[in-house]
Amino acid sequence: MEGPALNARKTGPKRRHESLLRTLAQPANTVPKLADKTHLEFNVITSEKLPEYARLDIFHRAVYPFMFLAQCFAVMPLTGIREPNPRRVRFTYKSLPMVVTLTFIAAALMMELAMLKHLLQIGINAKNFVGLVFFGCVLLACVVFIRLARRWPPLIRYWTRTELVFTRAPYEMPKRNLYRRVQLAGMMIIGLSLGEHAMYQVSAILSYKRRVNLCSAAANITAVTSFEDYITLNYDYVFQWLPYSPIIASLILLINGACTFVWNYMDLFIMMVSKGLAYRFEQITARIRKLEHEEVAESTFIEIREHYVKMCELLEYVDSSMSSLILLSCVNNLYFVCYQLLNVFNKLRWPINYVYFWYSLLYLIGRTAFVFLTAADINEESKRGLGVLRRVSSKSWCVEVERLIFQMTTQTVALSGKKFYFLTRRLLFGMAGTIVTYELVLLQFDEPNRRKGLLPLCA
Amino acid sequence: MEGPALNARKTGPKRRHESLLRTLAQPANTVPKLADKTHLEFNVITSEKLPEYARLDIFHRAVYPFMFLAQCFAVMPLTGIREPNPRRVRFTYKSLPMVVTLTFIAAALMMELAMLKHLLQIGINAKNFVGLVFFGCVLLACVVFIRLARRWPPLIRYWTRTELVFTRAPYEMPKRNLYRRVQLAGMMIIGLSLGEHAMYQVSAILSYKRRVNLCSAAANITAVTSFEDYITLNYDYVFQWLPYSPIIASLILLINGACTFVWNYMDLFIMMVSKGLAYRFEQITARIRKLEHEEVAESTFIEIREHYVKMCELLEYVDSSMSSLILLSCVNNLYFVCYQLLNVFNKLRWPINYVYFWYSLLYLIGRTAFVFLTAADINEESKRGLGVLRRVSSKSWCVEVERLIFQMTTQTVALSGKKFYFLTRRLLFGMAGTIVTYELVLLQFDEPNRRKGLLPLCA
Amino acid sequence: MEGPALNARKTGPKRRHESLLRTLAQPANTVPKLADKTHLEFNVITSEKLPEYARLDIFHRAVYPFMFLAQCFAVMPLTGIREPNPRRVRFTYKSLPMVVTLTFIAAALMMELAMLKHLLQIGINAKNFVGLVFFGCVLLACVVFIRLARRWPPLIRYWTRTELVFTRAPYEMPKRNLYRRVQLAGMMIIGLSLGEHAMYQVSAILSYKRRVNLCSAAANITAVTSFEDYITLNYDYVFQWLPYSPIIASLILLINGACTFVWNYMDLFIMMVSKGLAYRFEQITARIRKLEHEEVAESTFIEIREHYVKMCELLEYVDSSMSSLILLSCVNNLYFVCYQLLNVFNKLRWPINYVYFWYSLLYLIGRTAFVFLTAADINEESKRGLGVLRRVSSKSWCVEVERLIFQMTTQTVALSGKKFYFLTRRLLFGMAGTIVTYELVLLQFDEPNRRKGLLPLCA
Amino acid sequence: MEGPALNARKTGPKRRHESLLRTLAQPANTVPKLADKTHLEFNVITSEKLPEYARLDIFHRAVYPFMFLAQCFAVMPLTGIREPNPRRVRFTYKSLPMVVTLTFIAAALMMELAMLKHLLQIGINAKNFVGLVFFGCVLLACVVFIRLARRWPPLIRYWTRTELVFTRAPYEMPKRNLYRRVQLAGMMIIGLSLGEHAMYQVSAILSYKRRVNLCSAAANITAVTSFEDYITLNYDYVFQWLPYSPIIASLILLINGACTFVWNYMDLFIMMVSKGLAYRFEQITARIRKLEHEEVAESTFIEIREHYVKMCELLEYVDSSMSSLILLSCVNNLYFVCYQLLNVFNKLRWPINYVYFWYSLLYLIGRTAFVFLTAADINEESKRGLGVLRRVSSKSWCVEVERLIFQMTTQTVALSGKKFYFLTRRLLFGMAGTIVTYELVLLQFDEPNRRKGLLPLCA
Repeated sequence: MEGPALNARKTGPKRRHESLLRTLAQPANTVPKLADKTHLEFNVITSEKLPEYARLDIFHRAVYPFMFLAQCFAVMPLTGIREPNPRRVRFTYKSLPMVVTLTFIAAALMMELAMLKHLLQIGINAKNFVGLVFFGCVLLACVVFIRLARRWPPLIRYWTRTELVFTRAPYEMPKRNLYRRVQLAGMMIIGLSLGEHAMYQVSAILSYKRRVNLCSAAANITAVTSFEDYITLNYDYVFQWLPYSPIIASLILLINGACTFVWNYMDLFIMMVSKGLAYRFEQITARIRKLEHEEVAESTFIEIREHYVKMCELLEYVDSSMSSLILLSCVNNLYFVCYQLLNVFNKLRWPINYVYFWYSLLYLIGRTAFVFLTAADINEESKRGLGVLRRVSSKSWCVEVERLIFQMTTQTVALSGKKFYFLTRRLLFGMAGTIVTYELVLLQFDEPNRRKGLLPLCA
Repeated sequence: MEGPALNARKTGPKRRHESLLRTLAQPANTVPKLADKTHLEFNVITSEKLPEYARLDIFHRAVYPFMFLAQCFAVMPLTGIREPNPRRVRFTYKSLPMVVTLTFIAAALMMELAMLKHLLQIGINAKNFVGLVFFGCVLLACVVFIRLARRWPPLIRYWTRTELVFTRAPYEMPKRNLYRRVQLAGMMIIGLSLGEHAMYQVSAILSYKRRVNLCSAAANITAVTSFEDYITLNYDYVFQWLPYSPIIASLILLINGACTFVWNYMDLFIMMVSKGLAYRFEQITARIRKLEHEEVAESTFIEIREHYVKMCELLEYVDSSMSSLILLSCVNNLYFVCYQLLNVFNKLRWPINYVYFWYSLLYLIGRTAFVFLTAADINEESKRGLGVLRRVSSKSWCVEVERLIFQMTTQTVALSGKKFYFLTRRLLFGMAGTIVTYELVLLQFDEPNRRKGLLPLCA
Repeated sequence: MEGPALNARKTGPKRRHESLLRTLAQPANTVPKLADKTHLEFNVITSEKLPEYARLDIFHRAVYPFMFLAQCFAVMPLTGIREPNPRRVRFTYKSLPMVVTLTFIAAALMMELAMLKHLLQIGINAKNFVGLVFFGCVLLACVVFIRLARRWPPLIRYWTRTELVFTRAPYEMPKRNLYRRVQLAGMMIIGLSLGEHAMYQVSAILSYKRRVNLCSAAANITAVTSFEDYITLNYDYVFQWLPYSPIIASLILLINGACTFVWNYMDLFIMMVSKGLAYRFEQITARIRKLEHEEVAESTFIEIREHYVKMCELLEYVDSSMSSLILLSCVNNLYFVCYQLLNVFNKLRWPINYVYFWYSLLYLIGRTAFVFLTAADINEESKRGLGVLRRVSSKSWCVEVERLIFQMTTQTVALSGKKFYFLTRRLLFGMAGTIVTYELVLLQFDEPNRRKGLLPLCA
Repeated sequence: MEGPALNARKTGPKRRHESLLRTLAQPANTVPKLADKTHLEFNVITSEKLPEYARLDIFHRAVYPFMFLAQCFAVMPLTGIREPNPRRVRFTYKSLPMVVTLTFIAAALMMELAMLKHLLQIGINAKNFVGLVFFGCVLLACVVFIRLARRWPPLIRYWTRTELVFTRAPYEMPKRNLYRRVQLAGMMIIGLSLGEHAMYQVSAILSYKRRVNLCSAAANITAVTSFEDYITLNYDYVFQWLPYSPIIASLILLINGACTFVWNYMDLFIMMVSKGLAYRFEQITARIRKLEHEEVAESTFIEIREHYVKMCELLEYVDSSMSSLILLSCVNNLYFVCYQLLNVFNKLRWPINYVYFWYSLLYLIGRTAFVFLTAADINEESKRGLGVLRRVSSKSWCVEVERLIFQMTTQTVALSGKKFYFLTRRLLFGMAGTIVTYELVLLQFDEPNRRKGLLPLCA
C-alpha cells in the first residue's frame, strides 16, 4: 500500500506530469462528458506549471487524513488514499481495506442478528428497538460507503480538475483555507464523539458498580464486580449466542466502538464534502465582490459564469453519488433526535446517567444541526454574489450577467436527499416544526410508560 | 374483433398510408388545435416512409398487451386495442368489452352493497371499513376507466402523432427501449400482485384449516373442512343475501380476483403512461447533451424547443384525461398504506398470517413508492437538459435557448392530481412526513384495541 | 328608491351618455390612478355606441338580482342596486337598506348575547360553542358587508369600465355567458341552502314530536305538542330573557332564517365575484388561442398584455376590498367542516336526524369545496394562455410576448385572504391534509364523550 | 454623556459638516464595501446643503427616544444615543450604560438560578417551566442586544447614508412620517405592556388579600396582610436564597419590571426597525406610481433601481445584524402564545384572575401578530411597485425596467430568522396552522391536569 505512493513522491516533476495527463485523459465513464474541453485547458495549465498537489489548497489534500482514519474503521475501502495526488486513489475489491470492511460488516451483522433474536424473544417495543436501528444504520452506511468508494476515484479526479482553476489568480484564498476548515470540523466531531463514547462507557460501568454494591449490600453478600460480569450483562444478546471469553469480549467492545465511529463519520463526511463545495462558491462570491464599482468586460463575466456552472455540475455529480448517504444520515439523525427527546422526561437512577444523557442529547442535536447548516451553506454561499450582480451598472450590463443572475435565482444549488428534499436553511425550519409535532404526539403516547418510573434495581 | 385487424395487416403499404392520413386528418374534437401544422409535417413523413407501427418504438405498441389483458378484467372497454395501428382503437358503447365491463361493475356493486348491509348490521368501525373502501375504489376506478376509454382513441392518436418525430434521427433510441421498460414494469407489478393474491388465499385457507382442526379437537368432534364452509365463512356478507352454490362461490372468488386486478392495474396504468412520457423527455435530454461543445445553429434550438413544447402539450392533454385516475390512485394508496401501517403492531394468530401481512405491506409501500417515483421521473427528466443548456457558450446563445431555459425552469412539467398537487419527488417527501404524523396519532387512537389482543379462536 | 331608477330608464340615450361620462369622470378616490387613460378610451367607445348596460354581458347585470335579494336579508345596504346601470349604485348611511341591515344586526346581536349568557350559565364546551360561532360569524359578516358596500359603488364602476373592452370584438362570448353562469351557481346554492334549512326545521320538529309522544306515553300522560312549547324548547336561551309571544317566536324564526341566509351568502358572493373575474381571463385565453399558427403583429400582443394587466389590476382592487370577507368565509367554513366531521361518529336518536346530518355535512363540504374551486379557477384560467404563448414561433416572438409570459409565470393571480394565502388549487390540497390532522387529533379528544352515547330522552 | 452632545449642537454648520465627513469617511469594517461611491455622492449633497439631522425624517431621529428609554432598562448599551446626529452613537465597554446592563444581567441571572434551584427541588413540569423560559429569554435578549449594540454604530451610519437620498425630491414624504409612525407603535406597545404589568400586580395582590381573608376567617384568626408576606410568597424562590429585607424586596420588584420591559422591547425594536425599512420601500413605490402614464427616460429607471437595490442591501445588512433577535423573539412569542392558549380552559379562582388572563392573552396574541405583520409589511411594500412597472408601455420599456421587475419578482425582500424563514404574510398563515396542531395535541395532553380543577385554597 505504501510502495507506489513513496515512488510517486520520488519521481521528478516531468514523470508526474506525464502520468497525470495519462490518468486524466482516461475516459472516466460516469463523469459528465465535458472532459474534452476541460482536458485541453488542463494541458495548458500543466505545461505551464505542474500542480504540486501536496501544496495546493485542494479538497483531496484537506480530506484524505480523515478518509484514511475512516478506512481503519472499515469505511470506504480505497487504496492510495494517503497519496496527495488524487489520481492514485483506486478502488479494487481485492485489497486490504476491502478485507477490513467486509470483516467489520460480518461482525456488525452478527451483532444485529443477535440483537434481533434477543428482541423477538423478549418482545420488540419502541424503547428497545433503538439498538436494532443503530446497528442497521451502521450496516447500511457501510454498504452505502462501499458503493460510494467505487465511484470515488473518478469523482475525486473530476473534482480536482474542476478545482484547479480556483487555486490560481484571479481567485484568492479566503482567510481560513480549506484544509484548516475541514480539519477543524473533523477534529471537533471526532473529539466530541470520543467524549460521548467514553462517557457512555463510564456511565455504564459506574451504574453497574453501584448496582452490584447496593444489591449485594441488600442481600448481605460480598459485592464482586468483574469485567466478565459487566460485559455479559451489557451485551447479553451476544452471549446468548457465543460463549464468553476475554477475546470475544474485547472484540465486542471494539466492534461497538467502530460502529459508533461509522455512525458519527457519516455526518462528518457530509460536512467535509459540504465545506469543500461551499469553499469554492465562496471564492466565486469573493471574486464577484472585487469587481464591484469597476467597469467589467463581458469576457470576465463569461469566465465567472463558466466557473459557476462548472461548480454546479460538480455539485450535481457529487449529489448523485452521495444522495443515498445523505438520505440515510438524515433519517438516522431524525430518528435518534426524536428518540432521545422522548427520553427527556424519563427518570434515571444515577447522576452520571443524567450527565451522559444530556451530553449525548446535546451532542446529537448539535451534530444534526451542524451537518444540516454546513450543507445548507452551499446553498447560501451560491447565492451570495447576487447582491453585487444586481448592482452592476447599466454600462457593464450584458447578457452574461443576466444569465448568471437568472441561474443563481432559479437554480436550487444544494445537496439533496435523492432530490426528495434539498438541504437548505428553510428545510431545517420545516423539519424543526415537524419534529415538535412528532414529539408532542409521542410524549402523549409514552405517558403511561413514563408514569411507571424506574424498575426495581435488583430484579 | 380480430377481422379488421388482420385485414389491416394484409393491406399493402399504400392503402395503409391513405387510411392513416384519413384518420389523422379527422378533426379530433378534444385534441388541442395544433393539428394543422402537425398534419402537414406528418404528410411529409408519411410520403417519405410509411410508419410501420408494429416496428416503431411508440407508446401504443409498448402498452397494448397490458391494455388488452386489462380489458379481459373489465378495464377500459376499447375495440381494436390489439392492433399495432393506434388509429384502429375505437370506443363504442355497443361492444363486447363494454358488456364485460358493465357485468363486472354490476357484480362488484353487488359485493359492495352486500358488505355495506352486513356492516350496518354489525356496526361500522375503522377496521372493517376497509372492505367498503376496497370495493368502492374498484368501482370508482371502473367508472373512471370508462370515461378514460371514451377519450383514449383521440388521445392515443394525438400521442402517436407527437411521438413519431422522436422515432427518427436526430433522436436516438436509449439503451432500453420503451417497449422493454413498460414490459418490465408491467411484468413486475403483475407478478408481485399475483403473488400477493395467492398468498392472501393461502393465508386464509391455512388459517381456516388450523382453526377447524384446533376447535374440533377442543370440542372433541371430527374436524371437517370443506370449500363450502370456507367460502361461506370468508364471504359471509354475500351469503346473507345469496344462497350457496358452487357456481356462485366460484364467481365470488373470480370477482374478488378481478377486483384485486383492477386495484393493482390503476397504479400500473399510471406507471406505464409515466414511462411513456418520461421516455420522450429523456430523448430530448440526450439530444441536447449531444450538442455540447458544438457550435449550434439557432434553427436546431428552435426545433428542440418545438419538440419540448409539444411534449408539454401532450403531457397537459394526458394529465387532463388522467387526473381523476391519479387522484383516485393516490387517495387509495394513502388510505391502504395508513391502514396497513396501523396493523403493524397487531398480534396475529398464525405465522402464515405474519408472512402474508408483511409481504402485503411491503408490496403496498413498494408499489406506492414506485408509482410516485415513476411519475416523478417525468418531472426530473424534463429538467435534466438544463445543465447543458446553461453551459451554452455566449456565441451559440440565442433567444431560443433563453426561452427554452426559461420554460424548463418555470414550468412544472408533471402529472397532477387535478392540479391539486403535482407528482414530483418533493411531494413524496412532504407526503411521507404527513403519513408519519397520521400514523402516530392513529396508533395512539388504536391503543385500546391493540391491548385487547386476539379474540378467542372458537367463538 | 324606485323613482330615480325608473327615470333613468326613461331618459334617452343622449342624456344617459352624458351622465355616464359625468359619473365616470369623477375621481374615484380609492380606484387605482389609471383612470385618465381608461377614460379617454372610454369616451371613444361611448361616442361610437352607447353601452346598453341591460344588454351587455357585464358583471353588474349578472350579479344584481342576487345582490338585491341579499339586500332584503340585510346584506350590503346599497341603493339603486336594481338598476342595470352600475353608476346608479350608491351607498348612503341614510337609506332604507341601511335601516334593514342595522335592525337585523341588532336582532342578531341580541340572539348572540342571549346565547352567550345561557352558555356561561351552563358552561361552555366544544359542542355548544358552535352556536356562538354561528351568530358571531353572521354578525361579523354583516359588518364586513357594510364596509364592502361603502367601497362597492366605485369598485363596480371601475369593474364595468375595465370590462367594457371584453364585450366587443375581438373578444368573443364564451358558450355560456356570465349571466347564466352566475345565475346557475346562485340558484344552486340558494336551492340547496333552502333545502338544508327546511330539513333542519323538519328534523327539529319531528324529533320534538316523537320525544313528546314517547315521554308522555312513558309517563302515562296525554301528549301535547304546541308551537309555543317547540319554540321555547329550541330557543330556550332567548326566552330566558324575553317573555313568550307568538310574534316574538315568529321573529326569532325569521332572524334565524336570515342568519342562515347571510351565512350562505358569504360563500355565494365570493363565488359570483370569482366567476366574474375568471370569465374575463377565459376570454383572454380564448383570444390568445385564436392567434395560434398565425403571424401576429406586436401591436396585438401589446393590446392583449394591456388587457391582461388591467384584469390583474382589477383583481388586485377586488382582492383588497374583499379580503376580509374571504378570510371570514374560510375560517367559518373550516370551523364548521371540522365540527361536523367530528360528529360523524356520534349516535343520533332518530333516522330523520341522520338524514339531516348527512345532508348538512355533504352540503357544507360541497359548498366549501365549490367556493374554493371557483376562486381557484381565476388562478387556473389566468395561466391557461401560457401553453399557446410558449409555442409562438421565433418570427412572432417579441419583447411583449416575453413580458406577458414572464408575468403569467411569476405573478400569483388569485384572490387571497389578506395576502396570508392565495386561493389556488394547491392551497386546497394543503388544507385537506391539515384538516385530516386536526380531525384525527380531535376525534381522539372527543372519544370519551362519544362513548357516553345518547342522553336519556325524557330528562 | 451629555457634554459632547451639547457641544455638537452648539457647533456651527461648517464644523458639523467637516466632522460628518470625517466620520462617514471612516472605513466601516462590517459595512458592505460600496462606501466609495456612496461617499462621493454624499459629498455632493453635503456641500450643497448640510443635513440638519434633527429636522430630517430619518430613522435615527424616529427611534432614538425609545432606544434611550430602553437603555435605562439595560438594553443596548450605547453612548450618545440621545444625539440627533447618528455619528455620535458609539459603543464602548467602559460606559455607564454598559455598567447598568451588566448589573441587570447579573441580577436577572440570579433570579433565573434561584428559580432553577427551586424547581429542581419541587420538580419541573410544563406549567412551572414557564418562569425559567421567561428569565432565560430576557437574559438571552440582553446578550443579543449587547452584540447588536456593538454593531449598531456602523449600522446606523450606513442606514443614514442610504436614507438621505429619500429625504429629498423626487421622493415625497408620505402622509404620516416615519417619526410619527414609530412613535405611535412605540407608545401603544409601551402603554399596553404597562397595563399588562400593572394588571398582573393587581391580580396578584388581590388574590393574595382574598386568600388571606378567607383562610384566616376559616381558621378563626385575624387576617394580616403585609408587603413582606406578599413578596415572600410570590417570590419564594428568591427568598430561599436571600434573607428578606424591604430593599431586596423592592429590588426584586424592580428587576421583575425591568425583565418585563426587556421582554416587550424585543418585539418593539423589531417593529420599529421594520417600520423604518418599509417606509423607504413605500417611498419608492410612491415614486414609481407617479411615473405612470408618463414617458419615462431610462435614466430615471436606473436611479430608481439603484435606490431599490441599495434598500435591499440595507435590509440585508440589518437582517444579518438582527437575525438572532428575530429568532429569539419568534421562539419566545410562539412559546408564550402556546402556553397561554393552553390555559384558556383552566379554572381560575377569582374574577380578577380571569380579567388579567384574558387581557394578557389578547395582548400577547395581538403583539405577536403585530410584530409579524409589521415585519411582513416590508415584503408587501417592496413588491407594490410591480403593478405599475408591469404597465410600462412598450415605448418606455427598457432593460432597466426588466431588471427591476425581475428583481422585485424573484427576490424575497424580508427580514428573516437567520435565513431559516422569512417574515412574510404567508409564513404567518403557515405558523397559525402549526400552532393550532400543537394546541390540539397539547390540550389533549393536559386533559388530566385540567380535570383536577383548583387546588385547595388554604393548604
